[in-house]
This record gives sequence, structure tokens and C-alpha cells, in this order.
Amino acid sequence: VRAVQVGDDGLELAEVAEPNLSDPREVLVRVRLAGICSTDRELRRGYMGFRGVPGHEFVGEVVQAPAALQWVGRRVVGEINAACRTCPTCRAGVANHCPNRTVLGILGRSGTHAELLSLPIDNLHAVPASLSDEVAVFTEPLAAAFEPMAQGLRFDPGEPAYVLGDGKLGLLQARVLTLMGADVTVFGRHAQKLAIAEKWGARVGYTADADTASKARVVAECTGSAAGLATALSLTRPRGTLILKSTYAGESSVNLAPIVIDEIQIMGSRCGPFPEALSALVASQVAVSDLVDETYPLEDGLTAYERAAERGVLKVLIRP
Amino acid sequence: VRAVQVGDDGLELAEVAEPNLSDPREVLVRVRLAGICSTDRELRRGYMGFRGVPGHEFVGEVVQAPAALQWVGRRVVGEINAACRTCPTCRAGVANHCPNRTVLGILGRSGTHAELLSLPIDNLHAVPASLSDEVAVFTEPLAAAFEPMAQGLRFDPGEPAYVLGDGKLGLLQARVLTLMGADVTVFGRHAQKLAIAEKWGARVGYTADADTASKARVVAECTGSAAGLATALSLTRPRGTLILKSTYAGESSVNLAPIVIDEIQIMGSRCGPFPEALSALVASQVAVSDLVDETYPLEDGLTAYERAAERGVLKVLIRP
Repeated sequence: VRAVQVGDDGLELAEVAEPNLSDPREVLVRVRLAGICSTDRELRRGYMGFRGVPGHEFVGEVVQAPAALQWVGRRVVGEINAACRTCPTCRAGVANHCPNRTVLGILGRSGTHAELLSLPIDNLHAVPASLSDEVAVFTEPLAAAFEPMAQGLRFDPGEPAYVLGDGKLGLLQARVLTLMGADVTVFGRHAQKLAIAEKWGARVGYTADADTASKARVVAECTGSAAGLATALSLTRPRGTLILKSTYAGESSVNLAPIVIDEIQIMGSRCGPFPEALSALVASQVAVSDLVDETYPLEDGLTAYERAAERGVLKVLIRP
Repeated sequence: VRAVQVGDDGLELAEVAEPNLSDPREVLVRVRLAGICSTDRELRRGYMGFRGVPGHEFVGEVVQAPAALQWVGRRVVGEINAACRTCPTCRAGVANHCPNRTVLGILGRSGTHAELLSLPIDNLHAVPASLSDEVAVFTEPLAAAFEPMAQGLRFDPGEPAYVLGDGKLGLLQARVLTLMGADVTVFGRHAQKLAIAEKWGARVGYTADADTASKARVVAECTGSAAGLATALSLTRPRGTLILKSTYAGESSVNLAPIVIDEIQIMGSRCGPFPEALSALVASQVAVSDLVDETYPLEDGLTAYERAAERGVLKVLIRP
């Protein structure tokens, strides 16, 4: 199986073993299209001590499903956390947080930047025929942007909210908050990315101008930087909610006093519900194709990673 | 008016001006007994650039109340945030977070380590006759321990919870969580303080043992240290709540990744409801006298501050 792989000497093209289907709950999926996420680039730099095939965004076709033949031939997307389904966490209904879980292309499970992958049947969602691969491949990152709502966040119609960061995460988060009824302002650094936010229905501003903005009840931190978190805290109204979406590498220096003094609630938020994301894509509510910079064949996977790291670039796709 | 004061050269005994009662909403209170809080010691070291009379814990007697004569002669405790009552935050019902507020002995308002203080009538709570001054003086810090419940925290009966820190804040927080039905374990460093936690109905352990404890849904961070916060994060179950009670001075170095990965909710929590605290004291549900190390007359106020800073000391009181 051809794949991009994080080895001891960094990223490389490699021939890796075919995923093992000895567990009857697992299915084999041929990857049709995969996305490169910032997390993949972090993994490449040593985040979580990762070794193996990275990538967790994909759309594919089921090619083997020993215990569920009806899935064979279907076009699918897949949730990335593969839970044990037997521990107390799983039985409590929060399988996404199973302490024994593997995570596609992140933890103990080979990822999507390869010709084939395996996932448990329970993780699959069929892709409606109306969605192209180029749209369906955004299901996973878009689902993450719906997670704050799954965690209970609600808006009054037209209520102001801020998103810090104009990367993929910030743009998708801003769009979803807009769909939830908020009057969203995105603060970022890139005119081109802010133009997408504006096209998607948000107000926009440069990060430098965030300091003079009045406070809002809900602020989403999507920069992944300590500076972004400090700005987010300063923009969150007392008793407000700060959504923490970015995964931060290493230690950050934070002034914690405002969290206590202003009784701010910080809501860590990770993977989200696929059905909400698929519905929004079917309804053409998120113009995800605006985010695609380029698609590379798998054999140019290393070039794809280089491209994804360039300033101003949003989403780079890999087609095996 | 005799007072302890933070001046340019540090803490000093001083003669300060009598509080100004030109605002008819204000009353004059003779301080009967005041507590020294860790925040006072932070103020003395320059926290918030404070100058003036520190202290926000007190029980006193109203001696002047031009617009509310019925209060004169009554024994009172008082909430510490003096709000403007006219801004949008106040009108939204969160006067404790009024951006124009003064705060007793902390921000723009002379504090309780003096013979006299002034507060708005709205801030006063009458002290039931059954409560001694030595008990009533704990109303403010005990109220803060009830704040997480006012913010919506609830427990199943017997549900495990952790408190990190065996200082005054930690002990009061542990007791209140116990009263709310939780099975509380306090992790601390002082055998004597942990003995109080145990007497008050909690399990106890040394901080070094916290690493091997299993995770709980609710963890209260009451150490005020970055190390305490890191331990608290490691003890909080995925989708759990970390109550942040301590005010932190300066920047802390924090690994933010677990907040996002485990979708932890961090609940900043400050001043709390006085009625709940008074009820608990009247019902003898919190043996606050266990916390008192010594009471000093106001003229020995500097000695009182020195004593309060000693290792192992919990509460030092000042009697003007």
C-alpha cells in the first residue's frame, strides 16, 4: 500500500502493510480523496511522538467489510476516534473520549494519506450522492466546528460573537456560528482569507483591531497561539464562554486571572457530529470549495505537505 | 480613622480619612472583626497596583445610613463589589461584574482593615443574632465557595470530586462540595490542614499521591499555582469541569492541549452568594472556627499580616 509516512527522518513516501482486518468490526476503505490538516503538520514535527501514516480527513469507498457486506461499494466518510465500546467511558456514551481509543492517523492507527485505511463499521457515515468527493472530504473538519453546539452553546438571533484566526478552522467555525444565528466577526491576518469569511457572511477585521472591539458573550479561539488566547480572553464578556478549538503544542504562557475575575467559562472542543456536517454540506450551507488551494496525487504527497505549509494556503488535498 | 495601609514603602499603620458618605446609597460601618485573605497579601506585594486600606472580609455595625435609618445599629456583613447599577452589565443582572465597580479593599474602595468602612446599602446582609462575630466574619470567603453551585454545578449523591489545595479556600470549597452531596478528596501538603478537611467530611491525600488517583468529573483548583492547574487537568475526566477558584498573579505556563483533547470545561469562579453562606453558618454546617489561628488588635495589624504569611497558618483575624 502506497502512503505518506512520518519516519525517524521525517516525512517520506513509503510502501506500508495493508491494514489488518482481523477484528470483524473493521472495514477496509479505499481512499478517494484526503485532506491535509494543521495537525498532520504538527505530527510531522513530532507532536504526540507520532510515527506512521498521518491524515484523518478523507472520503473513500468501502472495499471489504466481512461483518457488514451491505457497506461494500459505498462511498463513506468516517469518524476518527475508534473506541473500545466496553470501558466505562464508552458505556457512559462518550466513546469519542474512550481512554483505550485509537485515532485515525493520530494515535495508534494508520491514517488517510494512503491508498487504503481501516476503521470500525460504527465510525462510517454514507455520503449522499449529491456530494462530490471535493465537498465530502470536508465533513470531518466541518463536524468539529459543530461540536460547540453539541456541547450546548446557543445564540440569540443576531447576537455578536468573535472568531480569532482566519485559518481553515476559524473560517469553518465562523460559518457554523453564523448558521446558528450569531452575528460573527472574524479577526485575522490575511486579506484573502478574511475575504472568504466575508463572503461566508461574517464581518471581518485585522487582529490588531481586536483590542478596541467591545466584548462579546462568545469568543472562539482558532489561532492556536498564546497571543490569540490572551486576545480571546480580553474579548470575552464576564460570565461569557471562550471556545478553545485549536490544539496547542507544548506549554503556553497565560495570564489566568481574568478567567477567575470575569468568571469566564472555557470550553475545550474537539471532534464533532458528522450528521450535522453532512446536512450542512448537502444544503450547500458551507462553500467549502472556496478553501481548496490545490489537489496533488499521492506520489506528490511530500510536495502537497510543503504546499500546505505555505503562508496564505488553506486546504491542500491528496488523491491516492 | 486608624487603619492598616499599603503605601509606597509597603504595609504601614496609618491614620486615614473617614469614608465619604456624600452618595446617599452609602452607609458607614464600624468594623467589629476582619479577616486577612491571601489576596490581601498579594495586594501588599503589588497585585493590581493597589494603594490604600486592604481587606474585604468583615463583620461590623452600621453607624450611619442617611437614606436607610433602619440599618443603623444592625450587625452586618457585606458583599464586596459596589456596582454602578446603571450600565448594561448591571441591568443584565450581573452587577458583580459591573465594569465601573469598585471592590472593597481591592479596587478603588478603602477596605476592612480599619476602624470604619463604607459600602452601598444594597451590599449589606444582616447577621442573624445566633452567629458570633468570629463565625460571621467567614461569610464572604464561604460565599465564594458556594459560587460554583450558583454557576450551575450539581452532583449526584456520593459522586467523587477532587479539591487541590488545603488552604482556607480549598478547605471551604471541599466542605461546600461535601454539603452538595459530593464524595470529596482534598489533596494538600500540610498534615494539620488535611486533618481539618478530614474532620469536615472529606477524604484526604498528599499532593504527590494525586498522580495515581482515578479521574473525576469535577475538580476544584485551589492552589493558585501552575503546577496545581496541571495536576487538576490530569485529574479531570473528559467532558468534566475544572473549577478555577484561585486568583493567579502574573503569567502561568500551561499545557492547553488536554483542555481541547479532553473537552474539559474550565469554570472561572469568584465571589458568591451571601444568603447560602449565612444559612450554612446558622445551621453550623461549616466549623469555620477550626480555621482561626489568632486574632490581633488593629494596632498589631502589621504583626497580623506577618503571622498570616507563615507556613501552616490558615486564618488570622484583626479586631479594630
